[in-house]
Amino acid sequence: MAGSASPSDRGSQDARVPLVVAVDANGADMGPSEVAAGARMAAQRGVHVLLFGPAAELGEVGPGVEVIDAPVSLAKSADPARAVRSTPQASIVQAARAVGEGRAQALVCAGGTGAALAACLFNVKRAPGIHRPALALPIPVPGSAVTLLDVGAGVQAREEHLVQFAFMGAAFAQAVLGVARPRVGLLSNGEESERGSELVVQAGAQLSQRFKDGQLHFVGNVEGGDIVGGVADVIVTDGFTGNIALKLMEGVSQTMLGAIRQAALASWRGKLGGLLLRPSLRAFRDEIDPEGEGGAYLLGLRRLAVVPHGRFARHGFAQAILRAEQGARKDVVGATHAALSEASALRSAPVSGDPASLGDE
Amino acid sequence: MAGSASPSDRGSQDARVPLVVAVDANGADMGPSEVAAGARMAAQRGVHVLLFGPAAELGEVGPGVEVIDAPVSLAKSADPARAVRSTPQASIVQAARAVGEGRAQALVCAGGTGAALAACLFNVKRAPGIHRPALALPIPVPGSAVTLLDVGAGVQAREEHLVQFAFMGAAFAQAVLGVARPRVGLLSNGEESERGSELVVQAGAQLSQRFKDGQLHFVGNVEGGDIVGGVADVIVTDGFTGNIALKLMEGVSQTMLGAIRQAALASWRGKLGGLLLRPSLRAFRDEIDPEGEGGAYLLGLRRLAVVPHGRFARHGFAQAILRAEQGARKDVVGATHAALSEASALRSAPVSGDPASLGDE
Repeated sequence: MAGSASPSDRGSQDARVPLVVAVDANGADMGPSEVAAGARMAAQRGVHVLLFGPAAELGEVGPGVEVIDAPVSLAKSADPARAVRSTPQASIVQAARAVGEGRAQALVCAGGTGAALAACLFNVKRAPGIHRPALALPIPVPGSAVTLLDVGAGVQAREEHLVQFAFMGAAFAQAVLGVARPRVGLLSNGEESERGSELVVQAGAQLSQRFKDGQLHFVGNVEGGDIVGGVADVIVTDGFTGNIALKLMEGVSQTMLGAIRQAALASWRGKLGGLLLRPSLRAFRDEIDPEGEGGAYLLGLRRLAVVPHGRFARHGFAQAILRAEQGARKDVVGATHAALSEASALRSAPVSGDPASLGDE
Repeated sequence: MAGSASPSDRGSQDARVPLVVAVDANGADMGPSEVAAGARMAAQRGVHVLLFGPAAELGEVGPGVEVIDAPVSLAKSADPARAVRSTPQASIVQAARAVGEGRAQALVCAGGTGAALAACLFNVKRAPGIHRPALALPIPVPGSAVTLLDVGAGVQAREEHLVQFAFMGAAFAQAVLGVARPRVGLLSNGEESERGSELVVQAGAQLSQRFKDGQLHFVGNVEGGDIVGGVADVIVTDGFTGNIALKLMEGVSQTMLGAIRQAALASWRGKLGGLLLRPSLRAFRDEIDPEGEGGAYLLGLRRLAVVPHGRFARHGFAQAILRAEQGARKDVVGATHAALSEASALRSAPVSGDPASLGDE
């Protein structure tokens, strides 16, 4: 992580009071017991966990973890918004309700982004003045993490959405990742401020003005390669582009590692070389291990929600819970609100219509 | 390449008549002499080359290469459209004019996409019925090449643009890459036909109808990871998204190879392992060598134009020239026109206004 941690402590919780994180254990590839094991690890580090899932499958959880039997899973639901409404007993709905009602200060959902987003919009709700939540992914680049948002909470975006995403991402990087003064870039097809879609050019002008006003460390347009290039700590884009970028990165790295493995297995020389290289490569793989980042983060809600990847093991779930608690302790939601308020970027009119809709489309 | 070659020979040139490729030698990282060396290699394989560049720097070119002294380069121009108009003696303008006037049947430009696009729009011109040209990049994925377009001729796109890109890409993959029945995908943030931006959903519906009518092998929406996943031979997107995807791919693969190299150098075990692995990795690197694909291709003009990467060596420039000739010989432009005509996807009204504009924005 770049720089030393100096997050805002505006509204931060007293470090001695244990915070409560609500966790939905359903949906992980390795089953609910793996999430439970992660909860146990996080509890050993002082977090209090409310664990919603099939009690019979969770195993021994130990002190600091309170199990609420909730066997119904929405993790594979084709229409999460509808499922969330019609299934109040589902684990993710119960977990989100615990956060909405103040019994927990943050949420972790192993059951996927769709279910988490729908349950949060309905039960945790958007933070005041937020147009639309965004899904932020800290990408483990060697040497630092780069937070890309939106990677798929929405699809298309408007100028005011991208402006809010910039502040939301910066507050997140500061409070949760400990980046002192996050550099924020706007993803485009060229570095010059006049390059990009109409949306990007307009949002860039807005963000440049905020930079001149000292409200945001905006570094201008960044290109696709800069996502892994370390030129910014936070990179803002719409959910369509962000989702494509995220999946492309996963695809390219998996394809390359697979091809290198194949190459190494193709000859005895290669096999021996691969064996000798393995410890060094393991260090590299640990450095870019997505589990270390806890998963993706739903920003723009009244509380922080974390969506670990379904394929994570216990270490990843534990990290998600610890990061969720850190976000609550450092009050990332309050810090976001304060920054948006200072930048006059809060939405003034309340959002009308369906409370569980994504926002003002 | 998937399948055996069975390109359309509609309008194909007699294989015994040598075709002429106009080549702009200015702009390559290694200088014009490297392009000249590539031209010499292509000429040895039967292509006749008109080589535009600084005669004093091109060295001995040998038979089949005709040098036209054109030392003025627009490769680094900040405003290529303006430069093309005001600099008729520039190498790229002369080369494009040779194609426009029929003295050559295809173009290769080492001086970058901006100059090539501007010079082609002005001198080669859009093919009849084409809304807008696209830049297509065959990505060297292990086992096959995937052609992504548009990677940056335009920025935003309309529905009818994406539909034309699908046919343009398919005709290109068939004629130039030898893919018998190219599978065409539409880049989106989900595989389901209802996922995506409004533009993508609408274009997807159009392409599905064309598939039902038997005019195109459309395989539906594909995700970011599918660009390297081999599920399609051609992937269609707008220039904004395509450019970001292209640069992200370059960035991720460079970052990973760099990190693996670093890891290998970190210990004597790693160094030895790296040495032993090197031959296998070299085979892998050859397989994904971008020079083998010749560069990026400007489609939608009256003639095919190829833009090799500036960092290419002679082999890459030779490949670009050979591919350009192949495109002319297989009449990729005629095949595109025929397919678009059959699919009733040609633009009916002529494009008005500035002849050098990108198209109907």
